Amino acid sequence: MELKIVKIGGNIINNEVLLDTFLQDFSAIDEPKILIHGGGNIATKMNESLGYETKMFQGRRITSEENLEVVTMTYAGLINKKIVAKLQSFGCNSLGLSGADGKSVLSKKREKTPIDFGWVGDVEQINSDLISVLLEQKITPVFCAISYDANGFLLNTNADTIASEIAIGMNEKYESELYYCFEKKGVLKNVEDENSFFKTLDKKTFQDLKNKQIIHNGMLPKLENCFQALEQNVQKVCVGNIDLVKFNSNEFTSIIL
Amino acid sequence: MELKIVKIGGNIINNEVLLDTFLQDFSAIDEPKILIHGGGNIATKMNESLGYETKMFQGRRITSEENLEVVTMTYAGLINKKIVAKLQSFGCNSLGLSGADGKSVLSKKREKTPIDFGWVGDVEQINSDLISVLLEQKITPVFCAISYDANGFLLNTNADTIASEIAIGMNEKYESELYYCFEKKGVLKNVEDENSFFKTLDKKTFQDLKNKQIIHNGMLPKLENCFQALEQNVQKVCVGNIDLVKFNSNEFTSIIL
Repeated sequence: MELKIVKIGGNIINNEVLLDTFLQDFSAIDEPKILIHGGGNIATKMNESLGYETKMFQGRRITSEENLEVVTMTYAGLINKKIVAKLQSFGCNSLGLSGADGKSVLSKKREKTPIDFGWVGDVEQINSDLISVLLEQKITPVFCAISYDANGFLLNTNADTIASEIAIGMNEKYESELYYCFEKKGVLKNVEDENSFFKTLDKKTFQDLKNKQIIHNGMLPKLENCFQALEQNVQKVCVGNIDLVKFNSNEFTSIIL
Repeated sequence: MELKIVKIGGNIINNEVLLDTFLQDFSAIDEPKILIHGGGNIATKMNESLGYETKMFQGRRITSEENLEVVTMTYAGLINKKIVAKLQSFGCNSLGLSGADGKSVLSKKREKTPIDFGWVGDVEQINSDLISVLLEQKITPVFCAISYDANGFLLNTNADTIASEIAIGMNEKYESELYYCFEKKGVLKNVEDENSFFKTLDKKTFQDLKNKQIIHNGMLPKLENCFQALEQNVQKVCVGNIDLVKFNSNEFTSIIL
């Protein structure tokens, strides 16, 4: 059976109207489905309101203990529960999860060398049994970008990676399809032209573009996740805007091997 | 089969050492179990840090939209996920829930008259099917004091009531036992004497004490919940401190009809 795994990015979380539209369209998907959400700018704003420092290293965020508390509050609390309550009102029975809940996403705290990124984890294992039990109950799991380690700690974790690892982990029991929804129509050939998206992007072309440094920095890890999923037999991987979940447009990028 | 439903109050949430001790003892319970937690003073502190006003009416809190966001962040996010991660490290596979998750606790927003308490809900229905599915998977549900209504809104809800309603709702499939853990050894005869707790407290004695205004204000709704549970065939109801979950002491109050 098909299983649609949809990840939504910050631009959708930050815009209440867009989020509502998306959640309504997502609720209309008949097949089993899973939602993964990032955090948007709510955590950054909350850090500012509380006077917590945001440390960066080469453009990448370092998660202090205070920052971890803020992402736990905003991702696992505020955003996750608002999404779940909204989905319920649209007739989609959903259940929000951090990785700690039911051991759903186990991670390993990232090594302190060469750079100590703080309370950040890299995914080690997905609990596909639990996710299957929920899906069999016609419940839609909604994951935030928080995982846990076996020592009782929560860890800030990349939402794109959680999405691809879930797609891979669920592939034994289902035919996983992975959809990344973000602010563009797809992977752009020219960042200044919204309509210059690839209809399909294969690994060789991606490698060429990567070597020529044509692909935008933020897109690189997302696309690495896409190809990793395909290499582990995820059936379909697409990148696009929220129209992706309507399945009636061909304005998105199909990632292929 | 027995099902132990344990509710912990603010004094335990506020004290990291006490919480750790409690969670370790709770993890050691072999039978199916459910945890319900209040919020402690973290939401109040967060409201202060964010400069949000806390409105009261006759000693009872009014939940504004801002306050609801804060309780959602702190109860469903920070406290709930910290507890779940800790329980995992103690070998207790747990899963945190707000009432919106899997439609577990449906409420009705309280009427605006005579007093508008804001985003507060009164429990209407417990989803015992979902809770049973989790328990059958040997998963311990951990509830925070947030419920939802069918219109997509989250609601601040009394944790004592959620606990008694879950005990009542699960009574069809299990033999529910309800344990309220708070800062005292039990229901005190004399609030100034910690050791003056009732060994047993029956409904007639409670009514007498209530009429004579001897029972402390905060205890009244808790005890109403206790008797309501017993009247709906919950097997056992006890009130005491965290030693309750060790089941090796007789220093607590047994509530009986």
